[in-house]
Amino acid sequence: MSELRKDLISREWVIMSPERARRPSDFHHQHEAQTVVTKNHSICPFCSGNESKTPDEILAFRDKSAKPNSSGWWVRVIPNRFPALMIEGKLNRSEHVIYDRMNGIGAHEVIIETPEHGKPLSRLDEKYMREILWAYRERYIDLCKDSRLKYILIFKNHGKVAGASIDHSHSQLIATPMIPQQVWIKIKGIEQYYDYRDNCAYCDIIRAESGEAERTVIENNSFIAIAPYAARHPFETWIMPKRHSASFVDMNETEIDELSAILKMILLKLELCLNDPPYNYTIINSPINSGVISQFHWHLEIIPRLTIAAGFELGTGIYINPVPPEESARYLREIKTIV
Amino acid sequence: MSELRKDLISREWVIMSPERARRPSDFHHQHEAQTVVTKNHSICPFCSGNESKTPDEILAFRDKSAKPNSSGWWVRVIPNRFPALMIEGKLNRSEHVIYDRMNGIGAHEVIIETPEHGKPLSRLDEKYMREILWAYRERYIDLCKDSRLKYILIFKNHGKVAGASIDHSHSQLIATPMIPQQVWIKIKGIEQYYDYRDNCAYCDIIRAESGEAERTVIENNSFIAIAPYAARHPFETWIMPKRHSASFVDMNETEIDELSAILKMILLKLELCLNDPPYNYTIINSPINSGVISQFHWHLEIIPRLTIAAGFELGTGIYINPVPPEESARYLREIKTIV
Repeated sequence: MSELRKDLISREWVIMSPERARRPSDFHHQHEAQTVVTKNHSICPFCSGNESKTPDEILAFRDKSAKPNSSGWWVRVIPNRFPALMIEGKLNRSEHVIYDRMNGIGAHEVIIETPEHGKPLSRLDEKYMREILWAYRERYIDLCKDSRLKYILIFKNHGKVAGASIDHSHSQLIATPMIPQQVWIKIKGIEQYYDYRDNCAYCDIIRAESGEAERTVIENNSFIAIAPYAARHPFETWIMPKRHSASFVDMNETEIDELSAILKMILLKLELCLNDPPYNYTIINSPINSGVISQFHWHLEIIPRLTIAAGFELGTGIYINPVPPEESARYLREIKTIV
Repeated sequence: MSELRKDLISREWVIMSPERARRPSDFHHQHEAQTVVTKNHSICPFCSGNESKTPDEILAFRDKSAKPNSSGWWVRVIPNRFPALMIEGKLNRSEHVIYDRMNGIGAHEVIIETPEHGKPLSRLDEKYMREILWAYRERYIDLCKDSRLKYILIFKNHGKVAGASIDHSHSQLIATPMIPQQVWIKIKGIEQYYDYRDNCAYCDIIRAESGEAERTVIENNSFIAIAPYAARHPFETWIMPKRHSASFVDMNETEIDELSAILKMILLKLELCLNDPPYNYTIINSPINSGVISQFHWHLEIIPRLTIAAGFELGTGIYINPVPPEESARYLREIKTIV
């Protein structure tokens, strides 16, 4: 089982997960070919027809006539076979000399986005994109009931360089028994901004960007997609709900439809503009089971992995971005998506 | 010229450096071959004899008979040809709508560690390793005189995956006109620990690790190299001075000798154990020109780049480490360095 350990100085937790690769020789050529990519459909555990190759599903949207753990689904959620954190057990906190640790309680799920191998998320019909968002929401709401869990991150790794170990399109969900420091920093930033300006920082960003338009890629009634003013990465894009809301589970049906539309459009634009770049996206929500933080403004961050975080970034946390957001927004606005 | 922009929420600065690659097509195949590696010695700007291919040197340790910017040196410091930040100009801070920005004032230097192409740092004689540390120190002390600068990071990128764009062994120095948030977080963590336990967190770590020994790789009179209890990365190793000190410039001659010895030994052990892995190291010092932060305890962090930071790490800042530090320390202790 994994173990959570806290750094004394940064106060950030680390997940020690020794179930994964562990011997030095396992890393010998990893810097050349870092992940196993399944090209052979017959052995892909995420393909329709191969349901028996995965743990039993937690949730699936499927034809009513079809049985659980068989084909006929269009979105399927399963436990991760090599979970970073596990739902089973009792959360124990303890000390080791001067250090703090916890056992690896949490959740780690995989959302298989399509039964079709080789179909990227950017090429899914909007109606299927919607279903994925509904699946995210359903799993999120269910896990919120577990009072041990304090934060849930839904994220996607696309491409080897972005950490995808299986190329069949999927996203993941990890729930942690503590609030990540990085989320605390955002909360503190939002609160400081609020104290100073009496308004939500994200709401102010939306207002400023709608007015200037040079960093706006696209918008619809409910959402705006922008290249943020202080983008850390080339072509970093944020999708933000125009209506202030702490969590994506508050979205209504129309808003889910509009998020599907704008997310698909941005992913397609990135694919066409950058020749199918590796990317990650994350849905940044307020913590759970920790009191209401109504000042939080949820959003989705998309980060194409085009540059390498080297010693300077690791040592300072400051990123060097060769593409100003005004330029990336212009390129993405101009790219045609009629394909 | 670069521009510094501050994120409203995380309050971290980003360096916008449009002098580097910028058009979408520049990134098209970058995820496959991200850097240009100079294999041909005759065109390598860092090789002895090719001094005219670089900007004029800032510092060099060379034979007394040799002229500046000619061969005969063993360590040579030059300005980075594509600087993230530049020393020339006046520091201007301004606002843009709701955002903060500064012009890209700072410094960006390259320390060429050896005249010999293809010689890695791990294989340099200790006496040359010492000279590199003396060059770091001399440049650091010189830049401290510039009151605009608030932080100096010395770092090394080894291997493509770690961000090295030229394979001739070198390190870099970037000085910034502000204290990075990540350094503030460490300062705050050190202060909180001090308030609670009346001692330096790093001093307590050294005491705890010397006692337990299972995470200690090697030590000498002045330094200890450990795998930290909450290591974020497999085979992450910290070298810490046993004597409490806020900055590496306080090292005396004996300490510099002992740091050379332990740094060389750790790099060699990593090379042998992990088959020449890509890695970064950073020297984490107290800020400069910002009052004395005597509670700070400088140290050197070595991070082999064996795993990928994917969506979960980007979204939470929490790392998943498949190799517990007790194991990595044991592997590194056991590897023989007689070669």
